[in-house]
Amino acid sequence: MSLKTVAVIGSSQANEEEYETALYVGRELAKRGIVVVCGGRTGVMEAVCKGAKESGGLTVGILTTYDGSDANPYVDIKINTGMSWNRNPIVVASGQMVVAIGGHYGTLSEIAYALILGKKVVGYKTHKVEGVLHVSTPEEILREVDSFFNL
Amino acid sequence: MSLKTVAVIGSSQANEEEYETALYVGRELAKRGIVVVCGGRTGVMEAVCKGAKESGGLTVGILTTYDGSDANPYVDIKINTGMSWNRNPIVVASGQMVVAIGGHYGTLSEIAYALILGKKVVGYKTHKVEGVLHVSTPEEILREVDSFFNL
Amino acid sequence: MSLKTVAVIGSSQANEEEYETALYVGRELAKRGIVVVCGGRTGVMEAVCKGAKESGGLTVGILTTYDGSDANPYVDIKINTGMSWNRNPIVVASGQMVVAIGGHYGTLSEIAYALILGKKVVGYKTHKVEGVLHVSTPEEILREVDSFFNL
Amino acid sequence: MSLKTVAVIGSSQANEEEYETALYVGRELAKRGIVVVCGGRTGVMEAVCKGAKESGGLTVGILTTYDGSDANPYVDIKINTGMSWNRNPIVVASGQMVVAIGGHYGTLSEIAYALILGKKVVGYKTHKVEGVLHVSTPEEILREVDSFFNL
Repeated sequence: MSLKTVAVIGSSQANEEEYETALYVGRELAKRGIVVVCGGRTGVMEAVCKGAKESGGLTVGILTTYDGSDANPYVDIKINTGMSWNRNPIVVASGQMVVAIGGHYGTLSEIAYALILGKKVVGYKTHKVEGVLHVSTPEEILREVDSFFNL
Repeated sequence: MSLKTVAVIGSSQANEEEYETALYVGRELAKRGIVVVCGGRTGVMEAVCKGAKESGGLTVGILTTYDGSDANPYVDIKINTGMSWNRNPIVVASGQMVVAIGGHYGTLSEIAYALILGKKVVGYKTHKVEGVLHVSTPEEILREVDSFFNL
Repeated sequence: MSLKTVAVIGSSQANEEEYETALYVGRELAKRGIVVVCGGRTGVMEAVCKGAKESGGLTVGILTTYDGSDANPYVDIKINTGMSWNRNPIVVASGQMVVAIGGHYGTLSEIAYALILGKKVVGYKTHKVEGVLHVSTPEEILREVDSFFNL
Repeated sequence: MSLKTVAVIGSSQANEEEYETALYVGRELAKRGIVVVCGGRTGVMEAVCKGAKESGGLTVGILTTYDGSDANPYVDIKINTGMSWNRNPIVVASGQMVVAIGGHYGTLSEIAYALILGKKVVGYKTHKVEGVLHVSTPEEILREVDSFFNL
């Protein structure tokens, strides 16, 4: 039985509110025993990993480099793709569902791939793409996670 | 000196107007000696290749399979990636500029990657993404191509 | 601090001796707190994951599909690349060192990538490639692991 | 009808004999109307492209960068993968058959992928891998090409 996973995506240059939201989401995912999968870098990716570690969770970073040097300090398992931005589809494919917090073009590419793959995508202050389930509070993100996993 | 290239992206299930537009764009690109790069499949991709061949042009399909079996009949050069949808960034990276005609989530992922890479993206009846130069007639697409290449 | 990882590579159609060796290696890696990274499928990949789980370890499968349907039952964390065999370099890049047990052309491609990336590669009854450290007993594999991690 | 293609692989740091051989192979492929596909860089890749251009042929470089800056001056069509060495399988998948001239670990990874994909691989002073058809003169390389395409 493989572990539960959620892919969390968002900008590498998060503003304070995005960072706090990702921290909270990371903490809550970890409390539920869900592995955090993300791009492993700064901003939202760092915050969600940091939050997960604060709650004793496990974090996976799908990195752009071959040597993992772009990982934030809260990544437990470094997946070193060496593929630069072409690693984006792997991030969303590796989460059973996807949470998008803010984000720029990289996040947009990930949202698009998540929808190609038929994933549930919960969006918080992110791109207005049809097919994304937009929510307006951090608590609602978790409610959607709980509903997805029947928790 | 490498050849001039334009990446043309859009839905594999184009409607008639999108198909006609892509045919026209293909013909016009070929007349200018510009190589058409696309995903190599059906819909907009097929139309732009067909148009280019009608004008004696050269077409490149960045395919999802290892054996090129997903190519439309108008692809001259099959690039067989074997990577499924993960080949999308390669399509846009291989055009000096990008033209988007209609399109669904796959096209959205390609637009996002084109913008990550700082490409000029001309959009015709496609996703309303900030950074895309939206035009409302097929002729304007070509005007933007001519302006890009100083033709 | 990210976790220690070893990539274990080998044929998806292992013979009995290869399977037993991979089981043993998996068990021993897990006892040392080292995460097993592999291609996530059958044969050597399955055996090393099974062994790791028997010792309470953690296993990561870098899978060929988008949906993880090719994972063996002992993969904890499914990395769904959707890239078919193009995922091979990611397997070896994600291990701090690499162990090859038997193997056919897929394993050969992974050995080549590991050497491109300058990884330590320990080989057991595998391709005779210059640069691989060939050993002749399962115990020696572990000795090389211990030496690599200063255990 | 797509064009005939041969993937030519070999070291980016070719010695003089390898360079001359690749030049000759490029010239001869071009004379037969066969498109040269390669990794687009220096050494054997440069030589085969240069040879092909001398005979008026067409060359495709499957490049490691997003911007094509690693292309040699004889690449007509730049396929910009942005995937670093992970682009290797695309090179061999995009040739209907494969010619290996010399080469180091990168070439070894490409030979392995060509064999995974069931391609005919002709090797000249390259890795001794089972499944490769080894020849000992440049003329024999072309004889194998002619036989493959029934020329």
